[in-house]
Amino acid sequence: SKRNKEMKMLKRLTLFVIFSLYYTAVTLASDPDPVQDFCIPNPRFGPITAHHLRILPCKNSSDVTTDDFVFSGVKTAGNFTETGLAAIPVNPTIFPGLNTLGMSFVRADMKTGGINPPHFHPRATEIAYVLQGSVYSGFVDSGNRVFAKVIEQGEVMVFPRGLVHFLMNVGDKPATIFGTFNSQNPGTQKIPSALFGSEINQDLLEKAFGLSPKQIGVMRRRFDPKRAR
Amino acid sequence: SKRNKEMKMLKRLTLFVIFSLYYTAVTLASDPDPVQDFCIPNPRFGPITAHHLRILPCKNSSDVTTDDFVFSGVKTAGNFTETGLAAIPVNPTIFPGLNTLGMSFVRADMKTGGINPPHFHPRATEIAYVLQGSVYSGFVDSGNRVFAKVIEQGEVMVFPRGLVHFLMNVGDKPATIFGTFNSQNPGTQKIPSALFGSEINQDLLEKAFGLSPKQIGVMRRRFDPKRAR
Amino acid sequence: SKRNKEMKMLKRLTLFVIFSLYYTAVTLASDPDPVQDFCIPNPRFGPITAHHLRILPCKNSSDVTTDDFVFSGVKTAGNFTETGLAAIPVNPTIFPGLNTLGMSFVRADMKTGGINPPHFHPRATEIAYVLQGSVYSGFVDSGNRVFAKVIEQGEVMVFPRGLVHFLMNVGDKPATIFGTFNSQNPGTQKIPSALFGSEINQDLLEKAFGLSPKQIGVMRRRFDPKRAR
Amino acid sequence: SKRNKEMKMLKRLTLFVIFSLYYTAVTLASDPDPVQDFCIPNPRFGPITAHHLRILPCKNSSDVTTDDFVFSGVKTAGNFTETGLAAIPVNPTIFPGLNTLGMSFVRADMKTGGINPPHFHPRATEIAYVLQGSVYSGFVDSGNRVFAKVIEQGEVMVFPRGLVHFLMNVGDKPATIFGTFNSQNPGTQKIPSALFGSEINQDLLEKAFGLSPKQIGVMRRRFDPKRAR
Amino acid sequence: SKRNKEMKMLKRLTLFVIFSLYYTAVTLASDPDPVQDFCIPNPRFGPITAHHLRILPCKNSSDVTTDDFVFSGVKTAGNFTETGLAAIPVNPTIFPGLNTLGMSFVRADMKTGGINPPHFHPRATEIAYVLQGSVYSGFVDSGNRVFAKVIEQGEVMVFPRGLVHFLMNVGDKPATIFGTFNSQNPGTQKIPSALFGSEINQDLLEKAFGLSPKQIGVMRRRFDPKRAR
Amino acid sequence: SKRNKEMKMLKRLTLFVIFSLYYTAVTLASDPDPVQDFCIPNPRFGPITAHHLRILPCKNSSDVTTDDFVFSGVKTAGNFTETGLAAIPVNPTIFPGLNTLGMSFVRADMKTGGINPPHFHPRATEIAYVLQGSVYSGFVDSGNRVFAKVIEQGEVMVFPRGLVHFLMNVGDKPATIFGTFNSQNPGTQKIPSALFGSEINQDLLEKAFGLSPKQIGVMRRRFDPKRAR
Repeated sequence: SKRNKEMKMLKRLTLFVIFSLYYTAVTLASDPDPVQDFCIPNPRFGPITAHHLRILPCKNSSDVTTDDFVFSGVKTAGNFTETGLAAIPVNPTIFPGLNTLGMSFVRADMKTGGINPPHFHPRATEIAYVLQGSVYSGFVDSGNRVFAKVIEQGEVMVFPRGLVHFLMNVGDKPATIFGTFNSQNPGTQKIPSALFGSEINQDLLEKAFGLSPKQIGVMRRRFDPKRAR
Repeated sequence: SKRNKEMKMLKRLTLFVIFSLYYTAVTLASDPDPVQDFCIPNPRFGPITAHHLRILPCKNSSDVTTDDFVFSGVKTAGNFTETGLAAIPVNPTIFPGLNTLGMSFVRADMKTGGINPPHFHPRATEIAYVLQGSVYSGFVDSGNRVFAKVIEQGEVMVFPRGLVHFLMNVGDKPATIFGTFNSQNPGTQKIPSALFGSEINQDLLEKAFGLSPKQIGVMRRRFDPKRAR
Repeated sequence: SKRNKEMKMLKRLTLFVIFSLYYTAVTLASDPDPVQDFCIPNPRFGPITAHHLRILPCKNSSDVTTDDFVFSGVKTAGNFTETGLAAIPVNPTIFPGLNTLGMSFVRADMKTGGINPPHFHPRATEIAYVLQGSVYSGFVDSGNRVFAKVIEQGEVMVFPRGLVHFLMNVGDKPATIFGTFNSQNPGTQKIPSALFGSEINQDLLEKAFGLSPKQIGVMRRRFDPKRAR
Repeated sequence: SKRNKEMKMLKRLTLFVIFSLYYTAVTLASDPDPVQDFCIPNPRFGPITAHHLRILPCKNSSDVTTDDFVFSGVKTAGNFTETGLAAIPVNPTIFPGLNTLGMSFVRADMKTGGINPPHFHPRATEIAYVLQGSVYSGFVDSGNRVFAKVIEQGEVMVFPRGLVHFLMNVGDKPATIFGTFNSQNPGTQKIPSALFGSEINQDLLEKAFGLSPKQIGVMRRRFDPKRAR
Repeated sequence: SKRNKEMKMLKRLTLFVIFSLYYTAVTLASDPDPVQDFCIPNPRFGPITAHHLRILPCKNSSDVTTDDFVFSGVKTAGNFTETGLAAIPVNPTIFPGLNTLGMSFVRADMKTGGINPPHFHPRATEIAYVLQGSVYSGFVDSGNRVFAKVIEQGEVMVFPRGLVHFLMNVGDKPATIFGTFNSQNPGTQKIPSALFGSEINQDLLEKAFGLSPKQIGVMRRRFDPKRAR
Repeated sequence: SKRNKEMKMLKRLTLFVIFSLYYTAVTLASDPDPVQDFCIPNPRFGPITAHHLRILPCKNSSDVTTDDFVFSGVKTAGNFTETGLAAIPVNPTIFPGLNTLGMSFVRADMKTGGINPPHFHPRATEIAYVLQGSVYSGFVDSGNRVFAKVIEQGEVMVFPRGLVHFLMNVGDKPATIFGTFNSQNPGTQKIPSALFGSEINQDLLEKAFGLSPKQIGVMRRRFDPKRAR
C-alpha cells in the first residue's frame, strides 16, 4: 500500500540520518587555542576513529564527570611487536577528555634489545621521559645530523616536531618511556612500514635506495601489513 | 499492531535525531584565523550554550542580515551583584555574529565602592576602556607583582592573557568599563567563587590558605552558589 | 485520520533533518595545524558552498582515493571577463582534498592588455609564478607605497597577506599566472566591484572619492552585479 | 702601554659585537600566543616605527611599571582630515605595553557629515563601539554584499578580519568610535589613497575603473600624498 | 696618527652597532609552529631569565650537541616548601633545548599530606602523570564546578589550559608527578600568593573575600614574599 | 685629556652594547600571522643560514625595493643529483622577501626516469603543480596507505603536512614541478639519507629494517654524505 511504502521510505531516511551522524559526526581540523574550557565528545555518536580522526559533538557539560579527565590505561605495558616494542598511543580516540586540549601522550615499553624503529610525528614535538631502563635515544635533523645518546631513568629528551627519531633498550632490563605531544593527534609514520609495507612503486624504491628488485621484494614481504606482526 | 509499533519506533528515532542536533550541534575548538568571511550560527539548531560553548552550523549567507553584526544589549548596565558589579559578557552565546571572528567584549558597571573581584580569563588578553568614573585597576604577574593604579574616563589599561586582575570604583559616582578580548570565548574564573564556591577538598583549602576548618566554613557559606548573590 | 497526521508530521520532521544536514553541515573556522592527516568532505552532505565556506564531515578514510588529492581543472584557461581576465580560484569548494590542509591556489590568464584589477585576499599571502607572458605585477603597502615591476615567465612575486595587488599583461601574447595561498579559503575582494558594485551609501562614496553624484552613478552602472560581465 | 691594551680590548669587544649581530640577529613576525606575561620594549633602543613595525628587546621586568600598561592618549579627539575624520590608532608604536599581547585599538572621531572612507585592516577583526553619535557603519563581504546600518551610542558593530568597511557620521553632533583589534598591528589600507595616492600604473587604473586618463589624473591630484590633507 | 685613526674606526664601529640596535633590534612572543628544526639559545649572551622570558639568538648549528636536547635535572626531588611541595619547573631557562619547540615540563614531589596549592598556568594545558603515590587531583571549570579524584601511580589527569587546579598527597608515602605543558613557558599563578603575597589594594581584597582588615592582615603576613617559605 | 675622555666614552658605549645584547637578545620561531606588512632581512647582518634558519632584523622600509619581492632564480633547472633530480628550494635563505610571510617554494626537475626519493617536510603542506612532463606522484598516510598516480602537465597534487611523499618522471622527456609550501622554512628530510647517510646506531638500523650488518654497510657507503652525490 501507499502507506506501507511511505513507512519504508521514512524508515530508510531516518536510518540514513542516524547512520550518517553515527559514522561521520563532525570533523575538527586544528590544534590551536581552545574556545571553551573543554569538549568531551558525545559517545552517543559513536567512536572517534583512528588515523583520520573524527571529532564528535561535545557532551552536555552536566554529563561530564571527573573520569572524563583521567586515564588509567597506561599502568601496564601493551602488546609487544616483533621488534620488542609495546606502544600505547593515547589520543582522543581512547581518552576523549584530551579533545581540543592540544596534547596527547604515549607509553612505550621495550624488551632488552628491543627498538622503537625510526619514525616521526608529523604534527608534534615530543617530550620523552625515561620511567625505567637505559635507552639509546636520538633524532636526525634536516641536515642529516644525528643527535643521540643513552639516557637513563629520570632523564628527559626532546624530539623536535616532525623529525625522525628512534629508541633502543640498551640496558639489561625492560625499559619504559612516557612521551607527551603538543597535539591531540600527533600522527606517526614508521619509516620501515611506510616505505616497504605500503605500495609505493617498486621501481621508485629501487632507485631511491639503490636496491635490487629481489632485495625490495624481501623488504616488502618483511613489512607486509597482512603478515602478523 | 505492528504498524503502530513501527510508527512509535520511527517517531522516537526521529525525535532523537532532532534532539541530538538541537542540543549538541557542532563544536568548534579554536580561536585562530577564520577560513571564511563570517559564520552566523543557525538559530534553528538552538541556542549556543554557555561555559562549554557549542557552535552551530552557519546560516546560509542569504539569510544573514546587517543585524547579525550589530549588538545593542550593552547600552545600559546589567544587574548588580552583592559586590556592586554589573557585568554583561558578550560572546557568541548572545551575539552570534562574533562566531569565528576571534573577539568578544564585556560591559562592566560598578557602584560607588563596588568591585570586580580578582579574576582572570584563561583564553584572552583584555583591553579595558573607562567609559566613566575613576577605577582602581590592576593585575598580578606570574612573579606575584601587582601593577595597579586609578584610571579615569577615557583611559585604557591592558590585562595580559591569563593573569589575575581586578577593578574597584574609587570615585563618587558610578563607573563603567568597556572591555574587549582577543577570543570569542575568553572564559572567566572568579577567584573567590572558584575556590570557595566550588567543592574543592576542604583539607586542601585549609592547607593552601592556612585557614581553620571554621574559617573555611564561613568562606564556603559566603560563596555558596545556591545562595542568592 | 490521526495516523495520517502523524505520518505527515514525521515526514516533515525527517525531511527537515535531511535538509538541514544537506545545506548546513558543519562549519569549520580555522586555518591552523591539522589534527589529522587529511579530511575529505563527504559529498553525501552536499556541496561545499562559496563565500561562506561550509565544511562537511569527513569521508570514511576507506572511501578516500588518490583522485581526492589531484586536481585537473586548471589545465586550460577559464572564461574571460571584460577586463581580459580568466581566473579559476581553486579551494575546497571545487577541490575538496584541500580541506584542512591550509593551502589553495588559482590559475589566472590575461589577454594581451588584460588586467587583474586591484584586489586583495583577506586571509592569505600569495606566491605568484609566471607560467607564460610578461606581467606588470605589484602591490601597495599600508603606507601607500607601490612595489611593482614587469615579471617574466619563470619569475615569482610574493604578495604579502591582505595587501592590495594587481596584474596587467604588458606582453604581446597571453599571460598565465599560477598563484598559491597559505589558506584553504583566502577570500578575494575586488576593489572596483566591492566599492561600486555593492550598495555602499552613495553620499559616503562621493565624499570618499571626491566624485559627483553623476560620476558615482556611472561607476555604479559599470560595476552593477546584474550586468553581464 | 695600558692605552694600547685598552684599545685592543675595545677592538675585540666591538668586533665580537659586530660578529654576534652578523651571525645571530633575529626578528619577530607574529601575533600568536605570548610565551611570557608581557614584554615592554626597551626605549633605550629607540622608538618602534610605523608601517613596518620593529619590535625591540624587552625591558628588564624590574624596570616595568604600572604606567607601561595604561594609555591616556585617547581622552580627546585627534586632528581632523579633510573628510572630517580624526583617527588615533594605538599600537605598540605609541603604547609599548601592547607588545606581544595580540590586541590594539583606535579612537575615531567624525564631524557632522564626516566619513571614515572605505578601508580594511589586513591583519585583524574590529569591534567598533559607539561612544557618541549616530553612525552609518558597514562592511562589504567577499561576495560584494554590503552589511550596513546606522548605529547609535552604546551599540557595537563587528567588522570581520580583512573586509572593507566604512563609517559616516549621519547625526547632527560629533560622533566618536572606540575600536579594538585582535592584532597588535592590524595595519590599515585606505582604499582611495592606496589606489590613487600611490603610484599604480595609470593604464591599469583606467582599465580597472573604466575611467579616462583625465579622470584618473583628477583622482591622483586629489589623493596626492604630497598635498596637505 | 695611527692611534687617532683607530679611535675613529672604533667610534664608527661602535656607533654603527648602537645605530643598528636602535633601529633594528627585535623580540619574540609566540609559542606556535617553529620555522626551523630547533634553536638552542647561545649561552654567550647570558642566561634566559625567568617570569619575563628573554630568548637569545640561536647557537650555530655546528655548536649544538646531543646534550642540548637531554635534561637530567629531574632525577630527584627539589626543595620542599612549607606546604610539603617540591616543584622543579623545566623551561628554556634551565633546559635551553626546549626553546621554540612549544613544550616544557615539571617534576612535583609532595610529602605525605603535602599539597600543591590552587594555581593555574596562563598559557598551557597540562598532562599530569603520577610517577608514584596517591594524589587527590583536580581542577575547577569556568562555571565553578570541580572535577577531582584520587589518582594513583601510572594514571594520568589532564588540566585544561588556564583553569585553576590543585593536588594533595593523600597516600602514606611520598608522591611524585611528572607534568608536561604545551608551551615552552606556561607560567604559573599560585592563587594564595598572587592574592595575599602581592600588594593588591587591601580594601578590594576585603570586599572580594568578605574578610575583615585583621583577617586580611593575617593572610598577608602568611604569604609575605619576604618571609622564608 | 680629550683622548682619555673619548676612550672612556667608547668603553662605556661598547660595554653598553655588550650588556644590552647579553640581557636582551632575541630569536624567532614561528610561521604565524605577520604583525607587519613585510620584513626584509637586513643584508648588513649577513646571510640567513640554512637548516637552522637565522632571521635577521628587518631593513628600513625606505630601503626596501620591488626587487625584494621578486625571485628570478627558478627560470632554469638546478644541478642534477645521481637520482636524476635537480631541486631548488627557495626560502628566505635565498629569497629574503619571503621572511615572515608564511610561504616558500621549490622548483624540481627530473630527468627521464629520475626520482625525487621518499621525503617529507616537517613543517608544511605542499601544492605540487606539474609544469611539464608525466610524473608518478604520491604520498603515504599515517596508516601506511599510499595515494599515488601519474599526473600530467597542468595538474596539481597536494601532499598533506608532514607525510612522506615521492615523485618519479615516468614520461619520455624531462619533467618539472613547481611546489609551494605554507611555511617559510618547511624543512626536508630525505628518508634514504636521513637513515643511512646519518650516524644512527647500526644495531638499531639492522633491527629496524631486518638487514644484515653487511647490507647496512652497503647502504651507508651509498648514502655517505662525504661521497659526491
